[in-house]
Amino acid sequence: MIRAGIVGATGYTGVELLRLLLAHPGAEPAVVTSRGNAGERLDAMFPNLRGHTDLAFTEPDPGLLAECDVVFFATPHGVAHAMAGELLSRGTRVIDLSADFRIRDAALWSRWYGQPHGAPELLDQAVYGLPEINRKRIPDARLIAVPGCYPTAVSLGFIPLLEAGLVDTAHLVADAKSGVSGAGRKAQVGMLLCEASENFKAYGVAGHRHLPEILQTLGDVAGQTPGLTFVPHLLPMIRGIEASLYAVLKDMDTDLQALYEQRYAAEPFVDVMPPGSHPETRSVRGTNRCRIAVHRPQGGDTAVVLSVIDNLVKGASGQAVQNMNLMFGLPETAGLDGIAVLP
Amino acid sequence: MIRAGIVGATGYTGVELLRLLLAHPGAEPAVVTSRGNAGERLDAMFPNLRGHTDLAFTEPDPGLLAECDVVFFATPHGVAHAMAGELLSRGTRVIDLSADFRIRDAALWSRWYGQPHGAPELLDQAVYGLPEINRKRIPDARLIAVPGCYPTAVSLGFIPLLEAGLVDTAHLVADAKSGVSGAGRKAQVGMLLCEASENFKAYGVAGHRHLPEILQTLGDVAGQTPGLTFVPHLLPMIRGIEASLYAVLKDMDTDLQALYEQRYAAEPFVDVMPPGSHPETRSVRGTNRCRIAVHRPQGGDTAVVLSVIDNLVKGASGQAVQNMNLMFGLPETAGLDGIAVLP
Amino acid sequence: MIRAGIVGATGYTGVELLRLLLAHPGAEPAVVTSRGNAGERLDAMFPNLRGHTDLAFTEPDPGLLAECDVVFFATPHGVAHAMAGELLSRGTRVIDLSADFRIRDAALWSRWYGQPHGAPELLDQAVYGLPEINRKRIPDARLIAVPGCYPTAVSLGFIPLLEAGLVDTAHLVADAKSGVSGAGRKAQVGMLLCEASENFKAYGVAGHRHLPEILQTLGDVAGQTPGLTFVPHLLPMIRGIEASLYAVLKDMDTDLQALYEQRYAAEPFVDVMPPGSHPETRSVRGTNRCRIAVHRPQGGDTAVVLSVIDNLVKGASGQAVQNMNLMFGLPETAGLDGIAVLP
Amino acid sequence: MIRAGIVGATGYTGVELLRLLLAHPGAEPAVVTSRGNAGERLDAMFPNLRGHTDLAFTEPDPGLLAECDVVFFATPHGVAHAMAGELLSRGTRVIDLSADFRIRDAALWSRWYGQPHGAPELLDQAVYGLPEINRKRIPDARLIAVPGCYPTAVSLGFIPLLEAGLVDTAHLVADAKSGVSGAGRKAQVGMLLCEASENFKAYGVAGHRHLPEILQTLGDVAGQTPGLTFVPHLLPMIRGIEASLYAVLKDMDTDLQALYEQRYAAEPFVDVMPPGSHPETRSVRGTNRCRIAVHRPQGGDTAVVLSVIDNLVKGASGQAVQNMNLMFGLPETAGLDGIAVLP
Repeated sequence: MIRAGIVGATGYTGVELLRLLLAHPGAEPAVVTSRGNAGERLDAMFPNLRGHTDLAFTEPDPGLLAECDVVFFATPHGVAHAMAGELLSRGTRVIDLSADFRIRDAALWSRWYGQPHGAPELLDQAVYGLPEINRKRIPDARLIAVPGCYPTAVSLGFIPLLEAGLVDTAHLVADAKSGVSGAGRKAQVGMLLCEASENFKAYGVAGHRHLPEILQTLGDVAGQTPGLTFVPHLLPMIRGIEASLYAVLKDMDTDLQALYEQRYAAEPFVDVMPPGSHPETRSVRGTNRCRIAVHRPQGGDTAVVLSVIDNLVKGASGQAVQNMNLMFGLPETAGLDGIAVLP
Repeated sequence: MIRAGIVGATGYTGVELLRLLLAHPGAEPAVVTSRGNAGERLDAMFPNLRGHTDLAFTEPDPGLLAECDVVFFATPHGVAHAMAGELLSRGTRVIDLSADFRIRDAALWSRWYGQPHGAPELLDQAVYGLPEINRKRIPDARLIAVPGCYPTAVSLGFIPLLEAGLVDTAHLVADAKSGVSGAGRKAQVGMLLCEASENFKAYGVAGHRHLPEILQTLGDVAGQTPGLTFVPHLLPMIRGIEASLYAVLKDMDTDLQALYEQRYAAEPFVDVMPPGSHPETRSVRGTNRCRIAVHRPQGGDTAVVLSVIDNLVKGASGQAVQNMNLMFGLPETAGLDGIAVLP
Repeated sequence: MIRAGIVGATGYTGVELLRLLLAHPGAEPAVVTSRGNAGERLDAMFPNLRGHTDLAFTEPDPGLLAECDVVFFATPHGVAHAMAGELLSRGTRVIDLSADFRIRDAALWSRWYGQPHGAPELLDQAVYGLPEINRKRIPDARLIAVPGCYPTAVSLGFIPLLEAGLVDTAHLVADAKSGVSGAGRKAQVGMLLCEASENFKAYGVAGHRHLPEILQTLGDVAGQTPGLTFVPHLLPMIRGIEASLYAVLKDMDTDLQALYEQRYAAEPFVDVMPPGSHPETRSVRGTNRCRIAVHRPQGGDTAVVLSVIDNLVKGASGQAVQNMNLMFGLPETAGLDGIAVLP
Repeated sequence: MIRAGIVGATGYTGVELLRLLLAHPGAEPAVVTSRGNAGERLDAMFPNLRGHTDLAFTEPDPGLLAECDVVFFATPHGVAHAMAGELLSRGTRVIDLSADFRIRDAALWSRWYGQPHGAPELLDQAVYGLPEINRKRIPDARLIAVPGCYPTAVSLGFIPLLEAGLVDTAHLVADAKSGVSGAGRKAQVGMLLCEASENFKAYGVAGHRHLPEILQTLGDVAGQTPGLTFVPHLLPMIRGIEASLYAVLKDMDTDLQALYEQRYAAEPFVDVMPPGSHPETRSVRGTNRCRIAVHRPQGGDTAVVLSVIDNLVKGASGQAVQNMNLMFGLPETAGLDGIAVLP
């Protein structure tokens, strides 16, 4: 069994990682840290874990963590910067769910995250953990940057079009909507049920931190950085991201459905839906799947791609486990084959 | 007091119309019909009306309805086609909340609504009841076609850009999201709480009936029919539409904020928010307001317009009352000055 | 126009009070204070107020407040204790929405609220503002203690049974459920949408602060303090309280329906529903009504009373305005005749 | 592998049963019937099953079903009456999730379900499938009546008190609240999101069909039929039942916490929470657990028991699988060890 450490497991990505690892056939949580809750049992904070674990939170002790095979960071920005180097130097592999190592350009990172980059010397070895484009690099990686939730949904939706060079990349549009869990388990007025339920709005239109990450990925795929308008919105629900993507086609003859089906035929977690489909977020809730449908409305020159994920699974903890599976030679789907609870 | 008839008041636009008319200072519901519920008190079906009315539903008798000053149709498609002519010939004015008279081209209507147009001879006198572009024609109108909910939110958002000729009209995008009440008070599995809550999806991507209506309005404003990709989505909540609109700017020098503020300065129900705003659907819930914000993200060449309405008020019954006020010489805001209940 | 001051208007009872007073025909908000938000416009914090007021929050200056005819406290416990005395001495009447003056026994208050009572000398003049039992004392009151939300729903439900002496008062049960807005507009993890939606639980079973308040009221009505088991629960929604009340009948011959109808015949805000009804919280949302139904299931010896209110209206701000109307000789229903928005 | 048939798998208990069986280590769905959807793939109706099964619905053919080891009925009342006999006579075991065989008294069943009992001759062999009281009888049973959702939550909560003879059984109160999925996947106006969300109400106060079932179980346990007031309520959420139970203690000296812990110490699916707990429905969502807390508020003479289950799992399909496990000698928890997805 792979011994996994989790730093910062009191948030939503943390408890989701716990859920996945506690049911994983080849790994188990061994050290789970929280500065503020050391000594408390996990299942006292998260009653869904009662009967599944006797672990308690511990102080984030690098020595203890280094005894793990892999350490996950489910922490605010900057924490992995501060701790990853020591763990890596002791031979422990690191899977970071925060944004600390997602952007290759440290200066760009600093600009968007408003603080100096704490570990630019590690950027060279960080692998962006989107298996659908980086699968070959992940097994040998020591340091994985798990993609953000919006970047996962948006990138997977655009990749086939961009790889095939079918669209005008100057004016891509990504209209994305996320459940409230994307904002984390922090006390903030805007995420109260009274504020966020029976309500809908865009936010961060001027510029969201996931924009440079998406541009980096799409640029890698397209060969040059595209022009992208990215508008996130807050959905009155807990889990799920839907991204509706718009691109003007330069080539109207390609069978988009076939293109998508072929691109993702071998991907265990990308499900291209039948023609005419409208993927629902609930169909992937609690699972590591991304469901995608591609449309060309009214036979016009605009492609519409609909992409849904669970922001806490394929958009965070599930993708982290998928990376762990690849890093440790386990079946890629190990521990990730649950069926969405519906309704 | 204006005596108002309502045909088909058992749906959501019907009960909303009742709420507005029962509190209106210059009008009152006089005849309220329902074929299936004749004899039943309104407040037995809608307990929120207890203490506010003693009316009961009656059979839809044209003679009785013709005694009203104005008759509202809150009915499925085709009913107003069948009944409006007789009422008009008897001198009763008609405000139709269905789509029966929204499209000027009867053949186009038939194609989208899948049935022959039942009253093409009345199309000439029908006025599209969007006061923000047709205010002058409404006072003398005998027959008003109340705009659809999506068309109201989308058109009000695009109008300033199109009137000013600032954007490439070949590739407009309208990504719209609606609460479930837009689907009406019909027993259908897809709108059950178990299906529609904690879930999000697009629908009707191939072609939604509101598309030709939007194209007609935007075409009137722009001077030619634009290219528009319109994708509606279903929100896990009751009321509210948010439309996020995308257009590529041909002219980057215009102050968009000033443009929108000036265009709507005299409009009592269009509120242009301060720069950088993200209008929330709840801020207009139960009210006749449309709140709009305009952005140019990252200083790029794409304008993003965010437009919110309550689909049952400005998107249906409130706009119907606004038209009634204009038709009968009442203050345009009469009975429409309520404040949104928040939270 | 009555000039009203509001201390602490940044919470949910505050914004609800603003909504009601801004639409009130005989009163208006004149001074609205907030220590933390002085200088900010009300409609910047609460966009539903845009177009309805130009007021800004000010520092809570007793001098300014004393120029008002009446000052509402929508504050945490203890604030009204500290400020009410000075206002009263200057002739300004006080309507306190907090619990500061609800309990006549200062020692009992201290025990439940965990702090010394800050103004025991004012308790003599405080009138418990439940018009349905205290209507005669309210017009001359200088200091009103607005009842809590649960106490309003529970007391109105039990009063007819207790006044008539029909039930065993040793074992009353009140199973009450409240929307999340009852917890206020405070940043706290437990009230996040992610924690409170799609979830249900009891809380405070060991003892909730509203228990002594309910016991005081029921004791006044029954002539002696009853035995009451009161269990509150948290509903996954914003507004509304439903209380299901259980009492064993000593007398099986009384017509409970008639009893309730007669008791509340003259009450403008208590609506006894027809036999067999199940009142819905949404039917009173945004309104000052309490809807009640009384049942005797299976013809047995247990009475079941179902009572619903909007916790922010009849359970707080609406009842406060009802008291104001009575204190200043206005029609009791002035500004409180809105119809619930449904759906 | 146990070959399972499912009759009527298009409802919510049906799809939940599919989810559980598709992931079950010792059983698999072999025949899945639906009269109205024969020929359609399961995953076309339920997209969460995409990638997990290639099965399609078939006509309910008794011959095909009889080839299964066990057949589950997830059907409206009366269907199992009509078909169970033939299957049993062919040696196929039957697990009925409907109410057809829950009540031992056929006349009583007819009275509550408003139709003649269709198979009274089978009642003798039907075993009420609540393992916590009937575990010994289940392995040899040929016909299992899976308990209703409310009866499961209420009975498990009351059993320890009644078995120990600690309470006055004349005036038990069960105030129960259920998510909307309890009403099934039927098109009905009352269960639309627009009707059931942001709303709460009691229903069926005069008499709910689960009442005689609860009385039968509690009577078995207590030795005589108790007096019970049972009031169900509709929660604005999808899954979960919470039952708050009230009973007057005859004996004040018993340690209720110890009583409950001992009673359920060996039960794999009943989790007695620590003293002072308030179990949340979400902590059992998607799982077969019942979580229970017992309180004696204010040290008084009334016991309050809080019991939560997922109505579709421990209240239906999960309990059905638990019975199957016991019937076929599998580990009782096989396929039922998932962790609730939280948040």
